[in-house]
Amino acid sequence: MGLLSEGVTQVVIPLAALVGIGFALLQWFLVSRIKVSVGSGEEHDGITDRLIGADQEEGVDTLEVTIKCAEIQNAISVGATSFLFTEYRYLSIFMGVFGVIIFLFLGSVKGFSTKSEPCTYNIGNTCKPALANAIFTTIAFLLGALTSVLSGFLGMKIATYANARTTLEARKSVGKAFVTAFRSGVVMGFLLAANGLLVLYVSINLFKLYYGDDWEGLYESITGYGLGGSSMALFGRVGGGIYTKAADVGADLVGKVEKNIPEDDPRNPAVIADNVGDNVGDIAGMGSDLFGSYAEASCAALFVASISSFGTHHDYTAMSYPLIISSMGIVVCLITTLFATDLFEIKSISKIESTLKRQLLISTILMTAGIAIVTYFALPSEFTLFDFGTAKIVKNWHLFSCVAIGLWAGLAIGYITEYYTSNAYSPVQDVADSCRTGASTNVIFGLALGYKSVIIPIFAIAVAIYVSFSLAAMYGIAVAALGMLSTIATSLAIDAYGPIGDNAGGIAEMAGMSRKVREITDALDAAGNTTAAIGKGFAIGSAALVSLALFGAYVSRAGIKAVDVLTPKVFIGLIVGAMLPYWFSAMTMKSVGSASLKMVEEVRRQFNSIPGLLEGRARPDYASCVKISTDASLREMIPPGALVMLTPLIAGTFFGVATLAGILAGSLVSGVQVC
Amino acid sequence: MGLLSEGVTQVVIPLAALVGIGFALLQWFLVSRIKVSVGSGEEHDGITDRLIGADQEEGVDTLEVTIKCAEIQNAISVGATSFLFTEYRYLSIFMGVFGVIIFLFLGSVKGFSTKSEPCTYNIGNTCKPALANAIFTTIAFLLGALTSVLSGFLGMKIATYANARTTLEARKSVGKAFVTAFRSGVVMGFLLAANGLLVLYVSINLFKLYYGDDWEGLYESITGYGLGGSSMALFGRVGGGIYTKAADVGADLVGKVEKNIPEDDPRNPAVIADNVGDNVGDIAGMGSDLFGSYAEASCAALFVASISSFGTHHDYTAMSYPLIISSMGIVVCLITTLFATDLFEIKSISKIESTLKRQLLISTILMTAGIAIVTYFALPSEFTLFDFGTAKIVKNWHLFSCVAIGLWAGLAIGYITEYYTSNAYSPVQDVADSCRTGASTNVIFGLALGYKSVIIPIFAIAVAIYVSFSLAAMYGIAVAALGMLSTIATSLAIDAYGPIGDNAGGIAEMAGMSRKVREITDALDAAGNTTAAIGKGFAIGSAALVSLALFGAYVSRAGIKAVDVLTPKVFIGLIVGAMLPYWFSAMTMKSVGSASLKMVEEVRRQFNSIPGLLEGRARPDYASCVKISTDASLREMIPPGALVMLTPLIAGTFFGVATLAGILAGSLVSGVQVC
Repeated sequence: MGLLSEGVTQVVIPLAALVGIGFALLQWFLVSRIKVSVGSGEEHDGITDRLIGADQEEGVDTLEVTIKCAEIQNAISVGATSFLFTEYRYLSIFMGVFGVIIFLFLGSVKGFSTKSEPCTYNIGNTCKPALANAIFTTIAFLLGALTSVLSGFLGMKIATYANARTTLEARKSVGKAFVTAFRSGVVMGFLLAANGLLVLYVSINLFKLYYGDDWEGLYESITGYGLGGSSMALFGRVGGGIYTKAADVGADLVGKVEKNIPEDDPRNPAVIADNVGDNVGDIAGMGSDLFGSYAEASCAALFVASISSFGTHHDYTAMSYPLIISSMGIVVCLITTLFATDLFEIKSISKIESTLKRQLLISTILMTAGIAIVTYFALPSEFTLFDFGTAKIVKNWHLFSCVAIGLWAGLAIGYITEYYTSNAYSPVQDVADSCRTGASTNVIFGLALGYKSVIIPIFAIAVAIYVSFSLAAMYGIAVAALGMLSTIATSLAIDAYGPIGDNAGGIAEMAGMSRKVREITDALDAAGNTTAAIGKGFAIGSAALVSLALFGAYVSRAGIKAVDVLTPKVFIGLIVGAMLPYWFSAMTMKSVGSASLKMVEEVRRQFNSIPGLLEGRARPDYASCVKISTDASLREMIPPGALVMLTPLIAGTFFGVATLAGILAGSLVSGVQVC
Repeated sequence: MGLLSEGVTQVVIPLAALVGIGFALLQWFLVSRIKVSVGSGEEHDGITDRLIGADQEEGVDTLEVTIKCAEIQNAISVGATSFLFTEYRYLSIFMGVFGVIIFLFLGSVKGFSTKSEPCTYNIGNTCKPALANAIFTTIAFLLGALTSVLSGFLGMKIATYANARTTLEARKSVGKAFVTAFRSGVVMGFLLAANGLLVLYVSINLFKLYYGDDWEGLYESITGYGLGGSSMALFGRVGGGIYTKAADVGADLVGKVEKNIPEDDPRNPAVIADNVGDNVGDIAGMGSDLFGSYAEASCAALFVASISSFGTHHDYTAMSYPLIISSMGIVVCLITTLFATDLFEIKSISKIESTLKRQLLISTILMTAGIAIVTYFALPSEFTLFDFGTAKIVKNWHLFSCVAIGLWAGLAIGYITEYYTSNAYSPVQDVADSCRTGASTNVIFGLALGYKSVIIPIFAIAVAIYVSFSLAAMYGIAVAALGMLSTIATSLAIDAYGPIGDNAGGIAEMAGMSRKVREITDALDAAGNTTAAIGKGFAIGSAALVSLALFGAYVSRAGIKAVDVLTPKVFIGLIVGAMLPYWFSAMTMKSVGSASLKMVEEVRRQFNSIPGLLEGRARPDYASCVKISTDASLREMIPPGALVMLTPLIAGTFFGVATLAGILAGSLVSGVQVC
């Protein structure tokens, strides 16, 4: 047994989650102190007072501009909220159906038996009946889906709440604007990390009331939580992604390329849809995505632990190691956040990117110490872990190494992604340079850069996998993924900062703010594009580890001892699996293509048929563009989603577990490259 | 023992090869009867005579035009020959060095021992010393490289010989022009298939003089032949590919896009480089590529056979099964060719593509019967094959199924490739349609189409692998690859037809021929683009099977019993291996990008600095563009080549056989998708 007693563990985890939520609310409160008027009497006066105090350069950042900001913010917020509500309505039907399928599948395995039976791993003990497992897994699934929705939705809310406020703060200074955008990202990061942890913790404790000492059944049911989270993530990411890319391409193509008007120009009919897209795609979608990875990693680790010595010895603190790591992550990220919001102030726009990078570094260094502390107190010095049917003896510092290497691999991926996507370094500059000779050299250079950017991250992931796999088998992989995601509150804050900065730039442009303000918001926007890429890097890196951990959990549960490439069934699974990410990409790209086609045609139609639009004398019909993106993304997210969810069912049913294992391995190794 | 005696086998194989060479020479002779003048007195008259007889519509297809054709042909031929000579000079140094490395590596394993030792598989017998194996492997390696060079070079020669002749024949009728281009493709197809078979057959028989009954050593040395062929293919393909794409992009970007002049317009300085590129890339490069696959497949099959009952029982006819299949392939392709050249005549341009498709179908149907005959006569009804350490009992009709499924999978891949690349079907039309809304929707649609086009071929390959793997382990895979390549003479003829038609179109444009002639050559060109894609489909499909067979040979030779994905070493190999095709692509794309950048700048410079160029009053400096492509491709083919050749050496040396097996499997499954 470790040094931490069960009682302390029971206090520490929910406390950390509550601290995280409290901290998020505090940040939200701080952001809310910046007032944005939508025209109501009282607030109006307040703003007028404040505005008179502010430096009004060039005479354009007047009350009128503030009201315009509020209007635009409102349009974006309404568009995003209405899209997400529609999306969630569709998805709730899907989740209901899928929940029933899960229940029927799991229940039918033992004929909906209500009799207790001997445990599979904890030999000699009795476990709960199959029907109970089916019910609780379905409940966990729905809880996971719900938490995912909540994470995405709250993130979108704070983002659309903060974008105009960031624009307004940009009138004061770059530092104030940055802090506003970053605080809002922090709200999302902490709400997601803390909610995810809290719901998981509460579910485990409630399920335990029924399961008692049957931890095998308990933690197997809990895996439903991960499945629910990642199913929602799939649809949220695909739907939001199609939405944002269609609007983006449509807006840029006609506006920037054909009509030669600036990005985010209010005359562009697709400009609101474009800004809505940032919020539903890069905020809500990315939030669901990272939550899905986090939930899956936790559940995979818990499941493997439950059939290892932690589970069979009923060592609650050691069992909760994944949750304690996440709790420590919240504390570490809280301290890290203070560096950006309070300890240092950004004085020039050139410091934005380096500050965000420093946040990653600080959280990683602090978290390394945090992991050491958690590992020392929570784990016994030696224990055995389940390793595909055999028991592997593992020491506590082995697990420390696994978590730490995942964490540092995440930092490496973040830094490499930054190098390949920031305009401060040669890769992006080379691609920009190649535009001189036209679209085709540009595409060639861009694709080559994209391909090249996977090389070092793959090596980072490979090292993390090798070390954690060697030291602690599948449990090692799962906690390495958790290590990468342990600073999720910080990395998500950095990631969410991106679309907020992007939107702030758009609002400044649309509201017709002065050049000086727009310079600041443009700088926030440029840094935001890079940090959004960093967020994607984290998402992919952690997804690779999580998928492997889940793959391990599948293989363990299916009782497979080896997945031998030298057997026909596995090999064809591997080659077909490697094709799936391409199929999936082809589907989503085709969807984006068709939706942008429609968007382009609509934007062109408006420019041609609305008199005075290009001269700025008439308002475009923003709503019709929003509708095109909404309809397209809702309709088109079904086929790729179905491909992902049905493939394992079909492959497993018709070709057996070996082929399915091959497919999972193939799509895992290929997907990391394509994504 | 099978029904065919060793004596008959010894006659049948070389006879088929000689018939193939004879048939190729006959076709060459038929093409050569079309006269192209370069201005010498006697021939001149002949052409004048003939031209007077020909229908001279619009008055432009006069003697002057014929002379111009000859000049252009000469320029292309000189450019291609000089490039290939330079390339081969570089490669001969490389091959020399690599040959020494192979010798030293293989020789040093047993300290250059000159003592005979007990056999590894054929237990109880004595095998030849390690030094002999090292020497003979090196010789086989050099022979393979030489045959590859010969195949590529001869293909380029006939192609540059036939392009202007095709143009001139287009004045008479589409049918005559088609037959000229097709016959020239046939020359290349048969020379390659027959030379490849003959050199392999002669080498085996010469090596046998030394090896005698030590078939293990004999066929292990022969694998050098495959390595030589595929090493040359790697460089030929990369070098030629960079050359052709740089010239293509450079010519199109400035000419078509910026200056708005037609493709292949003689005013474009890069136009000769573009046409040379077709010959060194799509003809010489593709020839080396398919020869490499063919040689590797044959060697892999022979090696596995030598350690199976065929080898241990010294059943020469059964051992030679792969060679007899290829012999039958030559005969079948000969009959198939007559359908296109003599039995049917093409009366309208819409029939070109369907005729070429029909050739594929005819050869596949005839070859199916051919395989049945060969299998029935050459193989005993039951035998055992080596299956990763165990012996698998296999019946002769099992092997028939393996070869046949490879053959038919090839047809399926060919047809699917045609569907996705021909302008007659919706995929290409959709992409063309998406250009209406600009470059970015076009790129999205194009990439999506590219990704989608791999889905069905992957399933075809998966079925072929599953069936042949299940029936006859690695030998099954190798002969399935040979089945796909058995009609290589026909598929290569169809493939080589493409660049010849492309060049014919270019020459017609440059020589300023009449619209009617250009309509015909344009139709030949359009069909040629599709058939060139079919050739690439075959190359990739067969490469997938061949790689798997080689992978199997590696695993067998390394004594690995299982490649378990659930071990850290294999898994990281898999994920890093899946990244390698991207790394390789990034390198080559970057190379193409830089070379096209230079080409674009040079073309622009010429348009700006040569007075009267755009008006057609001055000649561009073609040679400087040829030089840019030549220099770029020779310089840039080294790093990607080094990546491919060094990775196995480094991974194997530092991380061991398991990781290397993972890398090979990973790059195999990922490479099929990316290529």
